Amino acid sequence: MREIVTAALQMGPIQKADSRRQVVDRMIALLDQAHAAGADFAVFPELTLTTFFPRWYMEDQAEVDTWFETQMPGPETQPLFDKAKDYGIAISFGFAELTPEGRHFNTSIQTDPSGEIIARYRKVHLPGHSEYDSDRDFQHLEKRYFLPGDLGFPVYRTLGGLFGMCICNDRRWPETYRVMGLQGVEMVTLGFNTPSVNSQLPDEGLQDRLFHHRLSCQSGAYQNATWVVAVAKAGVEDGHPLFGGSLIIDPNGKIVAETQTEEDEMIIHPCDLDACTFGKTTIFDFKRHRRIEHYGLITQRTGAEPPE
Amino acid sequence: MREIVTAALQMGPIQKADSRRQVVDRMIALLDQAHAAGADFAVFPELTLTTFFPRWYMEDQAEVDTWFETQMPGPETQPLFDKAKDYGIAISFGFAELTPEGRHFNTSIQTDPSGEIIARYRKVHLPGHSEYDSDRDFQHLEKRYFLPGDLGFPVYRTLGGLFGMCICNDRRWPETYRVMGLQGVEMVTLGFNTPSVNSQLPDEGLQDRLFHHRLSCQSGAYQNATWVVAVAKAGVEDGHPLFGGSLIIDPNGKIVAETQTEEDEMIIHPCDLDACTFGKTTIFDFKRHRRIEHYGLITQRTGAEPPE
Repeated sequence: MREIVTAALQMGPIQKADSRRQVVDRMIALLDQAHAAGADFAVFPELTLTTFFPRWYMEDQAEVDTWFETQMPGPETQPLFDKAKDYGIAISFGFAELTPEGRHFNTSIQTDPSGEIIARYRKVHLPGHSEYDSDRDFQHLEKRYFLPGDLGFPVYRTLGGLFGMCICNDRRWPETYRVMGLQGVEMVTLGFNTPSVNSQLPDEGLQDRLFHHRLSCQSGAYQNATWVVAVAKAGVEDGHPLFGGSLIIDPNGKIVAETQTEEDEMIIHPCDLDACTFGKTTIFDFKRHRRIEHYGLITQRTGAEPPE
Repeated sequence: MREIVTAALQMGPIQKADSRRQVVDRMIALLDQAHAAGADFAVFPELTLTTFFPRWYMEDQAEVDTWFETQMPGPETQPLFDKAKDYGIAISFGFAELTPEGRHFNTSIQTDPSGEIIARYRKVHLPGHSEYDSDRDFQHLEKRYFLPGDLGFPVYRTLGGLFGMCICNDRRWPETYRVMGLQGVEMVTLGFNTPSVNSQLPDEGLQDRLFHHRLSCQSGAYQNATWVVAVAKAGVEDGHPLFGGSLIIDPNGKIVAETQTEEDEMIIHPCDLDACTFGKTTIFDFKRHRRIEHYGLITQRTGAEPPE
């Protein structure tokens, strides 16, 4: 048994006017709960430190840059790192990263129990669009504000196991999990900010939105025999609703914990990484069963091309 | 609207002692039902013509070969082709194929409404094992009796749309759907014979087995914005139970029809191929969103290799 007591720390809404300091105080309050419950590892959402700013159209790059972090930890986030270190809890969270070279990414990091950053991931599958789209009920400008991630999907050893990260829309792409599965991943963590309404299909409804979210995360877990921990930023941000539905999913694809609110809320589960072994050595023993000679199009072709 | 009225024609159990003629009579009876219900297209299971013989360990190749077809159509299956042609119904079904060169495949074919075979698929992901395994409650010797398919996952034009096939265990592998999705597939059909009991995990239970089946088919449909029609051979064959759960799934990943028995049973649905368009042009517009530069391991590496 390699049990990692894992807390998914869902965040309720963050308004445009909220400060980093206010957000970090809320994160620390959730971390206090996780510590009280015996957590080894605590996972926060995508873009945890701010509102989901890609819904706002901005032309002034200086304004855009106010949503980004140039240091991690920086003065505002140092108290979170200090608290995690005090507690000996490894943490993961997402933020908008502005590099010294001026590149912008939708990033997440993971620390070890001593508070050191031991892994970094930059979102590969940016959803949405790059120019103002008057056909949408609201904007989703991730392709405007971020570059696609340049680090791939690294899997790293920590906490006695094999961990990987992805972010939000990445979870809908089976390639995401498979690239990590091929590195033996035992726990995939991800944060998300997902509008409760489809900006291009208002009739879709919240239940269908949650269904697609669960379907993507559960199939990724099952088909790679890995834990998946998916953590929402939820609730109504300046009039724009995001859904909750943070999940802890076992390597069998079963949901073992799910949030019930759209507020700051913890779910926690003792995740035995050895529970990955059965799937990885039987039906999803890749070495025995995969047939890469027939998968070529997956890496040869970006878009769909129907036959003549 | 490009509506294909599609019938999933689940077959109940076929015993070892049952003849091809008996089976074809049952297939024709189901086809009569499909015709009466206005079907354009009728889909039968994997290895429709016989019991699921890979559960039986055989050392005599002549005995093995009795389960295979050397002609398609052959004398025993010609009446089925004739009836389908009379009705103007395109059909798809699976059978064990022995080629003139002596190669053995787990194969399915599709006809057009005139009864001509217009596509052939050979199962790529063979589950199970090749030697007798005394640790299992029962055998699953597909790797003994079949070669892995050598035709990839072709997508072909028929019935005014883009169709593809896979078989049984293929449905658990996201690569299967993706390779077809990259060819614009609008309907994936598959047959299956899935034991109700996991031979390596008897406690798993039927509900978990059905959950994994639905999860795999639904995620494949959603993530490629395609219809998926999954058809069981079900019921107790010579003491060995197979589950039912034949499904018609829309391009949104929703189950629109599911069988309720483990017997010969039809489900039918008017499948509008144009319903694929929304997903294929928005969230799963591959050309805009996929990032093949990060998918390399999927085709470079067969088995999982953890980092140092």
